[in-house]
Amino acid sequence: MQYSTHDLNDTIVALATPTGIGAIGVIRLSGKDAITICNGVFRGKDLAQQDTHTIHFGTIRDREDRIVDEVLVSLFVGPKSYTGENVVEVSCHGSNYIIQQLIQLFVQEGARMAQPGEFTLRAFLNGRMDLSQAEAVADLIASSSASSHNLAMQQMRGGFSDEIQRLRQQLLDFASLIELELDFSEEDVEFADRTELKTLVKKIQTYIHALIQSFDLGNAIKHGINTVIAGRPNAGKSTLLNALLNEDRAIVSDIAGTTRDTIEEVLNIEGIQFRLIDTAGIREASDQIEAIGVEKTMEKISQSALLIYVFDVIQTQPEQVRQDLAKLVKPDMHLLVIANKMDLNPHTKFEHYFEVGSGKGEVGRRKAERGNHEEVAGSTDSDFPFPTSDFPLAISEAQWIPISALEKMNIGFLKEKLYQSVLTEQVQVDSTIVSNARHFEALKKASESLDDVLHAMDSGITSDFVAMDIRRALAFLGEITGEISTDDLLGNIFGKFCIGK
Amino acid sequence: MQYSTHDLNDTIVALATPTGIGAIGVIRLSGKDAITICNGVFRGKDLAQQDTHTIHFGTIRDREDRIVDEVLVSLFVGPKSYTGENVVEVSCHGSNYIIQQLIQLFVQEGARMAQPGEFTLRAFLNGRMDLSQAEAVADLIASSSASSHNLAMQQMRGGFSDEIQRLRQQLLDFASLIELELDFSEEDVEFADRTELKTLVKKIQTYIHALIQSFDLGNAIKHGINTVIAGRPNAGKSTLLNALLNEDRAIVSDIAGTTRDTIEEVLNIEGIQFRLIDTAGIREASDQIEAIGVEKTMEKISQSALLIYVFDVIQTQPEQVRQDLAKLVKPDMHLLVIANKMDLNPHTKFEHYFEVGSGKGEVGRRKAERGNHEEVAGSTDSDFPFPTSDFPLAISEAQWIPISALEKMNIGFLKEKLYQSVLTEQVQVDSTIVSNARHFEALKKASESLDDVLHAMDSGITSDFVAMDIRRALAFLGEITGEISTDDLLGNIFGKFCIGK
Repeated sequence: MQYSTHDLNDTIVALATPTGIGAIGVIRLSGKDAITICNGVFRGKDLAQQDTHTIHFGTIRDREDRIVDEVLVSLFVGPKSYTGENVVEVSCHGSNYIIQQLIQLFVQEGARMAQPGEFTLRAFLNGRMDLSQAEAVADLIASSSASSHNLAMQQMRGGFSDEIQRLRQQLLDFASLIELELDFSEEDVEFADRTELKTLVKKIQTYIHALIQSFDLGNAIKHGINTVIAGRPNAGKSTLLNALLNEDRAIVSDIAGTTRDTIEEVLNIEGIQFRLIDTAGIREASDQIEAIGVEKTMEKISQSALLIYVFDVIQTQPEQVRQDLAKLVKPDMHLLVIANKMDLNPHTKFEHYFEVGSGKGEVGRRKAERGNHEEVAGSTDSDFPFPTSDFPLAISEAQWIPISALEKMNIGFLKEKLYQSVLTEQVQVDSTIVSNARHFEALKKASESLDDVLHAMDSGITSDFVAMDIRRALAFLGEITGEISTDDLLGNIFGKFCIGK
Repeated sequence: MQYSTHDLNDTIVALATPTGIGAIGVIRLSGKDAITICNGVFRGKDLAQQDTHTIHFGTIRDREDRIVDEVLVSLFVGPKSYTGENVVEVSCHGSNYIIQQLIQLFVQEGARMAQPGEFTLRAFLNGRMDLSQAEAVADLIASSSASSHNLAMQQMRGGFSDEIQRLRQQLLDFASLIELELDFSEEDVEFADRTELKTLVKKIQTYIHALIQSFDLGNAIKHGINTVIAGRPNAGKSTLLNALLNEDRAIVSDIAGTTRDTIEEVLNIEGIQFRLIDTAGIREASDQIEAIGVEKTMEKISQSALLIYVFDVIQTQPEQVRQDLAKLVKPDMHLLVIANKMDLNPHTKFEHYFEVGSGKGEVGRRKAERGNHEEVAGSTDSDFPFPTSDFPLAISEAQWIPISALEKMNIGFLKEKLYQSVLTEQVQVDSTIVSNARHFEALKKASESLDDVLHAMDSGITSDFVAMDIRRALAFLGEITGEISTDDLLGNIFGKFCIGK
């Protein structure tokens, strides 16, 4: 796709609402001729004479003077509009036939069908938003959880791009001074204070590093976390799944189609979506762990970021657990090991766990108070109900949690552990978070360039090399906000938008 | 579904645009508190202070003051709105998550989820449109062809309901006079001129009859016509289908999803849709006509309103055609018999057909001019290329058309015949047309009642019986425009609307 500023002379048109049957559809026009084009087919008030941000009822007629529809026309006179240009939104009856007729009519009258994301591209090109804000618009539309929504909203309203822009400007000032030095290179002057520059670079690095660190979380928030529950037959996988989902009375939607695209069960913990992938398949597969064989399922497990391995604390031998984990766990995979059926555990030591959480003893009394979900703390290796010597090494290296899925004991603690598994030490959900892979890559490259700057300064390399490294860092930072952009980059970003946005 | 005027005190809310991914979604509120409810969560200008038909940018925040979205709010102060009440349209980013959050928020603030069609119901109850106009709104949204769109548009903008209303009023005046006579029955007065009354009733009957006559066409326009192409193997069914569709370069839509729901091939002739149902299946089935057996396919044929039977004019024996038609043709089914492969017909008489249309002779020359689609007129029995005596009776009773599907000869004429098969003598597309089954039923019942009125007057039955028949006719006519309506009737009509309309 070719995007160039040249195209800004056209007036573009597209359906802004989803296709399908609905009460109304909204067709959006943007460009210098938007109002003129609409006015040409509209019967009602003269739109050219109306104020911005006003709505007008009338009919739209085709060239044979047949009424295509009765519509409401919303006027936005540039630059007070989404794109910064003249914008007209035509609200018509939600019939595909009418929408199609109207769009064809507007094209006849001189508009051009918009390309995906072209309205938002224009908003960017006309300075209504920076590039990372424009990208957030698409994220916002695609967001399906509180966290991903918050993330996109934060980014759309400025997010970290303001700070990046500020720091970049400071670096740019230093760059100018160093470039100036190069012009006077024969005179050996030093306009740019090297100590200050180093301090600034280090400050930027700290900020960038935090953003880079946040990407795992950002990515998890944006795309959810592929999670597998595996275990032997009767380990209690389904019961655990139900216990987890049961308490997550997600958002029950009155709107048809909201969850239509969901093909997996989704566990929402504090707004982060754990996508329990093809659980049935996995269940079956894990039933055959000894035989393995189910390659496709194993492949899915290997693509998951998080494995919840459940074992029956009564029936399963430590050696079996060790074998299963050896087969299941892949590199870069978070692992939670769940010791299930703790309510049946004969070891007296078990009572202790419940005391930690509830401050009370007596498993028997707990059972009588079913539904009173007092939580039990996690466990360290030494608390494990098996003799430590019997305990498989793999588990001792992972986080593990004693629960009873049936009695819903410790499920809340398990969820907390699930949630924490996506948080790194440095990053909390309320800090500034990067969720866009493009930003992540640009930040990493900017960081490398800044490392080079520091290295160059420390090793006394000549200023022209330092200047080059700074310029490279500036370019990468500029890509994030769009101060530096190419047609390819824009095509890449906006091509992924839906048409009409 | 219960609809009562009582509900008008609530403020209702619903998504007015289709669900799915789009640039924007529009949430609609209607009711006396619509503006207040929106104002409570909106940060921007004070909406209560703004003019009707204005648009305001701002954010909507939830009760924890988190931004749910940046929105545009369109204000319509009653009665200058679709429903006649205060209406607010909130244009938000087209994310299901955001839409759901906003609707939940509005419900928290005191709005109620709208029932299907409830906005339009309110428009009707508040006198913004009559019932047949309200029904036309749903038809308009569902319309998928030029004809069905025109029909719905005509009806929405008044259509025949104005005339019905006017005639009904005149009848109502007579009814009052007759009721008055009944009060003075002992004095044997006659306030209502019987001759004038008879004239009026006959005038209404003429109008109603024309409307009733139009229903077949209206129904065909609205729902399309189930059409089957049947014939023996190699009769040229596929070639005919392609020839028909080829020339019908329908509307090629840029909008995804426009034809998504189409499961059949649709032939559009002058805006009337001929749905060629499950052609492949039929083809297969018709290949087995002698064996029959394919019950399901035969069932589909029997459900069709129109059968296009194709036979190979060279290979097929008249007796075979007779047998096929005996098996295929059902009562109430239009039949077009197509004599295909006329280009191969050795009878000299064949040239004559082409002369009729083109005014030129010589089949040979025609073939040289392939692509020069001169049309050939239809044929009467006496023109048929077979000796008349051999010709199956069934065909002589039906319309039949000589064509060459391969050479695309006479296809235009065939289309004309297809089109005419839905028109009755009395009804043309530009006359007033009834397409709504409810209106059709009411008109039929009104007509019966009016027949009773005339009969009663002619046979000198007492005035109280005449008055009763008139009242019944008035009631049926009143049902069309909604002057007479019950909760059941309204529930029936509006329950079929989509939510948000």
